[in-house]
Amino acid sequence: MIKAGIVGGTGYTGVELLRLLALHPAVELAVITSRGEKGRRVSELFPNLRGRVDLAFVEPDNAVLKGCDVVFFATPNGTAMKSAAALLKAGVKIIDLAADFRLRRAEDWEQWYGMPHACPELLVEAVYGLPEVNRAAIRAARLIANPGCYPTAVQLGFLPLLEAGVVDPHSLIADAKSGVSGAGRKAEVGILLCEAGDNFKAYGVPAHRHLPEIRQGLTTVAGRLVDLVFVPHLTPMIRGIHATLYATLTDPDVDLQALFERRYAGEPFVDVLPPKSHPETRSVRGANQCRLAVHRPQNGKTVVVLSVIDNLVKGAAGQAVQNMNLMFGLPETAGLEQIALLP
Amino acid sequence: MIKAGIVGGTGYTGVELLRLLALHPAVELAVITSRGEKGRRVSELFPNLRGRVDLAFVEPDNAVLKGCDVVFFATPNGTAMKSAAALLKAGVKIIDLAADFRLRRAEDWEQWYGMPHACPELLVEAVYGLPEVNRAAIRAARLIANPGCYPTAVQLGFLPLLEAGVVDPHSLIADAKSGVSGAGRKAEVGILLCEAGDNFKAYGVPAHRHLPEIRQGLTTVAGRLVDLVFVPHLTPMIRGIHATLYATLTDPDVDLQALFERRYAGEPFVDVLPPKSHPETRSVRGANQCRLAVHRPQNGKTVVVLSVIDNLVKGAAGQAVQNMNLMFGLPETAGLEQIALLP
Amino acid sequence: MIKAGIVGGTGYTGVELLRLLALHPAVELAVITSRGEKGRRVSELFPNLRGRVDLAFVEPDNAVLKGCDVVFFATPNGTAMKSAAALLKAGVKIIDLAADFRLRRAEDWEQWYGMPHACPELLVEAVYGLPEVNRAAIRAARLIANPGCYPTAVQLGFLPLLEAGVVDPHSLIADAKSGVSGAGRKAEVGILLCEAGDNFKAYGVPAHRHLPEIRQGLTTVAGRLVDLVFVPHLTPMIRGIHATLYATLTDPDVDLQALFERRYAGEPFVDVLPPKSHPETRSVRGANQCRLAVHRPQNGKTVVVLSVIDNLVKGAAGQAVQNMNLMFGLPETAGLEQIALLP
Amino acid sequence: MIKAGIVGGTGYTGVELLRLLALHPAVELAVITSRGEKGRRVSELFPNLRGRVDLAFVEPDNAVLKGCDVVFFATPNGTAMKSAAALLKAGVKIIDLAADFRLRRAEDWEQWYGMPHACPELLVEAVYGLPEVNRAAIRAARLIANPGCYPTAVQLGFLPLLEAGVVDPHSLIADAKSGVSGAGRKAEVGILLCEAGDNFKAYGVPAHRHLPEIRQGLTTVAGRLVDLVFVPHLTPMIRGIHATLYATLTDPDVDLQALFERRYAGEPFVDVLPPKSHPETRSVRGANQCRLAVHRPQNGKTVVVLSVIDNLVKGAAGQAVQNMNLMFGLPETAGLEQIALLP
Repeated sequence: MIKAGIVGGTGYTGVELLRLLALHPAVELAVITSRGEKGRRVSELFPNLRGRVDLAFVEPDNAVLKGCDVVFFATPNGTAMKSAAALLKAGVKIIDLAADFRLRRAEDWEQWYGMPHACPELLVEAVYGLPEVNRAAIRAARLIANPGCYPTAVQLGFLPLLEAGVVDPHSLIADAKSGVSGAGRKAEVGILLCEAGDNFKAYGVPAHRHLPEIRQGLTTVAGRLVDLVFVPHLTPMIRGIHATLYATLTDPDVDLQALFERRYAGEPFVDVLPPKSHPETRSVRGANQCRLAVHRPQNGKTVVVLSVIDNLVKGAAGQAVQNMNLMFGLPETAGLEQIALLP
Repeated sequence: MIKAGIVGGTGYTGVELLRLLALHPAVELAVITSRGEKGRRVSELFPNLRGRVDLAFVEPDNAVLKGCDVVFFATPNGTAMKSAAALLKAGVKIIDLAADFRLRRAEDWEQWYGMPHACPELLVEAVYGLPEVNRAAIRAARLIANPGCYPTAVQLGFLPLLEAGVVDPHSLIADAKSGVSGAGRKAEVGILLCEAGDNFKAYGVPAHRHLPEIRQGLTTVAGRLVDLVFVPHLTPMIRGIHATLYATLTDPDVDLQALFERRYAGEPFVDVLPPKSHPETRSVRGANQCRLAVHRPQNGKTVVVLSVIDNLVKGAAGQAVQNMNLMFGLPETAGLEQIALLP
Repeated sequence: MIKAGIVGGTGYTGVELLRLLALHPAVELAVITSRGEKGRRVSELFPNLRGRVDLAFVEPDNAVLKGCDVVFFATPNGTAMKSAAALLKAGVKIIDLAADFRLRRAEDWEQWYGMPHACPELLVEAVYGLPEVNRAAIRAARLIANPGCYPTAVQLGFLPLLEAGVVDPHSLIADAKSGVSGAGRKAEVGILLCEAGDNFKAYGVPAHRHLPEIRQGLTTVAGRLVDLVFVPHLTPMIRGIHATLYATLTDPDVDLQALFERRYAGEPFVDVLPPKSHPETRSVRGANQCRLAVHRPQNGKTVVVLSVIDNLVKGAAGQAVQNMNLMFGLPETAGLEQIALLP
Repeated sequence: MIKAGIVGGTGYTGVELLRLLALHPAVELAVITSRGEKGRRVSELFPNLRGRVDLAFVEPDNAVLKGCDVVFFATPNGTAMKSAAALLKAGVKIIDLAADFRLRRAEDWEQWYGMPHACPELLVEAVYGLPEVNRAAIRAARLIANPGCYPTAVQLGFLPLLEAGVVDPHSLIADAKSGVSGAGRKAEVGILLCEAGDNFKAYGVPAHRHLPEIRQGLTTVAGRLVDLVFVPHLTPMIRGIHATLYATLTDPDVDLQALFERRYAGEPFVDVLPPKSHPETRSVRGANQCRLAVHRPQNGKTVVVLSVIDNLVKGAAGQAVQNMNLMFGLPETAGLEQIALLP
């Protein structure tokens, strides 16, 4: 059994990791930390785990974490980078669900996240944990930067187009809509039911931290600089991201449906829908799945890709488990067979 | 492997059965019927099942169903009773998720459901599928009347009090609140998002069909006639029932918390919360679980029980699978280990 | 024009007061205070008021408030009592939307609200602002204790029964359900969309601060001590309270429908629905209205009253304006003609 | 008083017209028709209107409608065109809230709406009722084609850019999100709370009927053919449209904020927010208002406009009343002073 630790398990990615790992056939939940909830039973904070997870939160402590085979950081940005070197040295593998290792250049990180990076030397080693792009590297990695939720939905949608070179890389628009759990479990007025409920709005249009992450990933697969307009929105639901992606076709004869189906043929967690489909976020609620549809309205010059994920699963905890499976040589789908909850 | 058939799988209990049975370790989904959707792939109607359930709907046909070991009826009331005798004769076990076999007396059924009963002779044999009351009988049964959603939540809450004889059986009030999926997947104006959303109302106060079912069950465990006021409400969420139960104590010295914990000590799917708790419906979302809390406000004469279930799981499909497990000698929890989805 | 001030206008009762007063034909909005938002334009915090309310928040200051004819306190409990004496002395009328003057006995207040009362001598003078009970006294009052939201819905539902003496005053149960705005505009995890959305739960079953207020009001109209079990619930919607009320009939021959219709015949803001009705909270969304229906299920001994209000209007700001109208000799309905927003 | 009639008042635009007209100072509600609900009181179907609208539905009958000064058609597409000629001849003004008179060319209408047009000769006379573009023509009109909800939000957002000629008219993308009430009050499975709730999806990407309407309007103001990709989405809320609009700038030096503020300087119902703003749909809930913000992310070549309206008010009934006010020489804001309901 793989001994797993979770640092900072009081947020939504934390409880989601617990839900998935508690039923994972090859994992033993060894330790979960939280400074604020130290001593409290996990199932008291998250009543869905009563009778299933019999742990209590403990103070974060590298000595304890070093006894784990893998440690997941479900912490705010800037936390994992402080412990990573010590844990790696002790032979512990790390999967960071925050942003600490997502940007390759420390100066980019410092600009977008507003603090100096604590271990820039590890940025070279860290592998960006998008298995559909980096599977081999993930298998060999000690340190995974688990992608953001928007970046997962947006990159999986644009990938086939950019790899095939059939769109203008300077024409990309990502109009993305997220459920409110993407904002985390924080005491903030803006995400109260009475503020975010029965309401729809864009936010972060001037700049959002997921922009450089997406741009970096798309630039890599395109093999040249891409230009991206990224507009995130808050939609009044709990889970789910819907990314509506636009790009200008440079090859008017490409068979888009075939291109997408071919690209994702072997992928266990990416599902290309039939032509003229409209994926729904609820079709992936609670499941480690991305569903895609590709359109070319009025047979014009613009391709439209619709991409949905559950932000807490394929956009966070599920993808982290998928990465863990790869790192430990387990079947990639182990512990990730949940079927989406519908309705 | 147990060959399972589903009759009428286009509603919410149908898709929930599919979700549970598709991952059940001892079940093979053999057939699913629907007159209206004949020929259509199940995963086209329910996109969460893409890649997981590879069946298409077929016309209902007893010849085909007779090849099953068990048939679930996820049909409107009045359907199962027409095929039950033939299937039982062919050695098929039946679990009816509708109301056809819930009331013991045919005349009650006819009064409340407004049609003659097609096989009143089977009412004697049918076992009411509430495992916490009828476990032994369910193990031996060929024909199960799977309880209604409200009746499950209400009976599990009142049971310990009535069995122990510590409340006045003429003082029972069940104020119950249901998510909208309890009304089914039907094209009706009243359950549109714009009618039922951001809205709360009672309904069926003069009379609701679950009243005689609850009264019959409680009368049986009390060993004497009970009197019940039952007021159902529609609450703007998808899944979940919250029953708030009131009764007048006749024994002021009873330790209510101990009584409830003792009664449900061995039950895998009933969870008694610590004193002063308030169970949330989301703590059972997608899980085959009932969570209960018992209160005595101001140490007065009234006991208040709070009972939550997911109406589609412990209130329908999950309980049906639990019954199937018992009928086929499987571990009672097989295929029912899902952890509730929170948030 | 009546010069009106609002103290503490950054919560939901504050913005609702602004919405109503901005269109009131006889009111001039003179001042609105907030320590935290000092200097900020009101319409920046509440974008629905852009172009309609041209005020900025100012520091609370009695000197400024003394220039008003009436001051509304939309503040946390314990605030109004500190300024009331000074303002009254200056000839300003006061309507407190918090609880400071709701309980007649200072010791009750101190027990339930956990702090000493700053001006117990004013408790005698304060008039409980439920116009359907205290209209004449309100007209003559200088200081109004505006009722709580639950107390308004519950008292209006029980009133006709207790005044007529047709129910056992020791049998009262109020099972109440509130939209989340009842909890205010506060940065708290429990009322996040991802916590309170798609979820239903009871809270405060052991004790809730509205219990003594309701009990005091009902005891007064009954002319004898009443016994009440009060169970509040949180329902996943923004506005609205639905109170489901139970009492044991002592007069089996009373015509309940006629009793309710007669009691509220002249009331502009209480609407008795026809027999067998189920009022919906959305039928009063945004309107200063209470809608009631009365039932006697199975012609039994229990009467069931269904009572709905918008907790922010008839349960707070609308009732406050209604009280102001009475205090200043205006038509009681002035500025309160809004029709509920449906859907 | 203007005598107003409503044909087909059982849908959401119908009840919204009733809400607005019931409080309009210059209107007398004379008649409301519905074949299906004939004889039923309006307030029985829409309980928010109890005590406010004392009409019953009558059979549609031109003889009765001819007694009106203005008739609103809140009917399915293809209805108004059958009665328009007769009513106009009788001197009745007509405002059609459906699509019958929105497209100038009968062949376009027939292609997109799939039926022959009953009175193509009236298409020339009909005025497209977007006051911000056609105010003078509306004042003189007898027959108004009230714009669709998406077209209102999209056109008001693109207008300043196209009139000023600062964007490439072939680069337009409208990514629009609508609350579910936009789909109407119809018994359809797809808009049930359990289907559309806690879910987000695009629809109609290959083609949506509002596309030709938008394209026609934008082409007119641009003075040349425009190219538009239009992707509508369903978002789990009741009211509101949020259009996120993209266009490629051709004039990199234009001051976008000033352009928008200047264009809408005198408009009573269009509000340009300060730079870097993100309008929320709830800021216009129930109000006849469009709120706009304009962005240029990363100072790049793409302009992003955010446009919100209440689809039932500025997107339907409110705009219809605005048009009526213009047609009858009333103040344009008469009866439209409602402040949005927030929260």
